[in-house]
Amino acid sequence: MKLLRYGPKGQEKPGLLDAQGQLRDLSAHVPDIAGEALLPASLARLAALDPESLPKVEGTPRLGACVGQIGKFICIGLNYSDHAAETGATVPPEPVVFGKWTSAVVGPNDDVEIPRGSVKTDWEVELGVVIGQGGRYIDEADALKHVAGYCVINDVSEREFQIERSGTWDKGKGCDTFGPTGPWLVTPDEVPDPQNLKMWLEVDGHRYQDGSSATMVYKVAFLISYLSRFMSLQPGDVISTGTPPGVGMGQKPQVYLRAGQVMRLGIEGLGEQRQQVVQA
Amino acid sequence: MKLLRYGPKGQEKPGLLDAQGQLRDLSAHVPDIAGEALLPASLARLAALDPESLPKVEGTPRLGACVGQIGKFICIGLNYSDHAAETGATVPPEPVVFGKWTSAVVGPNDDVEIPRGSVKTDWEVELGVVIGQGGRYIDEADALKHVAGYCVINDVSEREFQIERSGTWDKGKGCDTFGPTGPWLVTPDEVPDPQNLKMWLEVDGHRYQDGSSATMVYKVAFLISYLSRFMSLQPGDVISTGTPPGVGMGQKPQVYLRAGQVMRLGIEGLGEQRQQVVQA
Repeated sequence: MKLLRYGPKGQEKPGLLDAQGQLRDLSAHVPDIAGEALLPASLARLAALDPESLPKVEGTPRLGACVGQIGKFICIGLNYSDHAAETGATVPPEPVVFGKWTSAVVGPNDDVEIPRGSVKTDWEVELGVVIGQGGRYIDEADALKHVAGYCVINDVSEREFQIERSGTWDKGKGCDTFGPTGPWLVTPDEVPDPQNLKMWLEVDGHRYQDGSSATMVYKVAFLISYLSRFMSLQPGDVISTGTPPGVGMGQKPQVYLRAGQVMRLGIEGLGEQRQQVVQA
Repeated sequence: MKLLRYGPKGQEKPGLLDAQGQLRDLSAHVPDIAGEALLPASLARLAALDPESLPKVEGTPRLGACVGQIGKFICIGLNYSDHAAETGATVPPEPVVFGKWTSAVVGPNDDVEIPRGSVKTDWEVELGVVIGQGGRYIDEADALKHVAGYCVINDVSEREFQIERSGTWDKGKGCDTFGPTGPWLVTPDEVPDPQNLKMWLEVDGHRYQDGSSATMVYKVAFLISYLSRFMSLQPGDVISTGTPPGVGMGQKPQVYLRAGQVMRLGIEGLGEQRQQVVQA
């Protein structure tokens, strides 16, 4: 099942993409793709619907983030050995955890804004994991049962704000529009192996990132279990699991985004995003 | 005006504390002390009510966090020069910003849990600033107009998780129950100078922290303006502005919390908190 949210910003309705690529409306069945609608019983109820029976959504509406009302947007840093190397870092002995302010979340094709004063706005294609059933102190063996689905995330990052401005990374990760999420939330039955998905990102048609979740160091099941030792996870929380090599900071010389450029990115089976870069 | 939320966890109702210390119910006037209810026009409407006309709340119900549905819980680190010194750090050239996961937020008198595996759970009394009118790129001269009110926060912190476990501070700051907030949100008209408030914290009756917001390095107005360069601020966002000296990590030898202990803390004019420490 491919779940999505469509419509103007702040007024998104729940929907799904059927096998023919047609958007269908789910408003009669769930209030939003968010919170309790992501619990296993709710997802099972949606999966039992005949998509043909759902109203067609005409035209090509804007897509919102594929999850609404995100409580925690939890990010993992340096989780691909090649990416760690390109940034001059080593893979840490346990996962690096940081946060993206939830006000940064936007739709998959919304504009990405370069913050005022920024000279180092960068990209990161990442596999997003959306929590269904919440929990705390979750066993790794049970961890994947807590996944409502997977999605594409662009973990947009301002490197000077992140690294050169004192303190933690949080200043450079959560600027408005730095969290394109979607186009759809793909339920686990359609993702046979989340650790074997090709992923890529292009800027103005130049392919900078061309990796696979196969080279992720700390895997999805481990991450869920690990994070749940430091916080409870709740329905609608999002974990962004790190990026493969090819970010702008890793180029020689370094390359950063400029207003007017276009990013395209995608993950095998999870769809694609396209963002115009604009100045805030 | 002293606004508050009372009732069982997850079912809190809005209320206020009148001049005689009587709890009054505000359910007929706002759905919650949260989001749009914190905008200036809404606060003005509440301030115009005659407290005597509001239903009395009988008994002594549990208090929830004084703000509901917090979108961002933004913390400032090392913001008192004496505290920076006691932790072996220097005051940074610009504010250190980090996040507390919103799932950590609890009422002012709820139990604080020591996470499994923790040996360094510590306390930090802090002045909390609650955003009313949101904004981005806010001028420092206008910043205080964006404040809905002030409150007491205990920025409970696990020092090993925070400092010795790779990466940013976020692992040690957002464990469940690490964000007691309240008892009430005090509107700015009752806080003539937020930079001149006595603040204190005791564990089992021993006073460890005894400071004043007068020694805060980066002041409230500057912080609001500064943060708004890295994110938009929204109604109900909370900024915890750092702690004065006297944390457990700063003692010689260091002192950390144990199950069975009791923390009491308060800030002049903003009320007091009391937490029993328990094992998770």
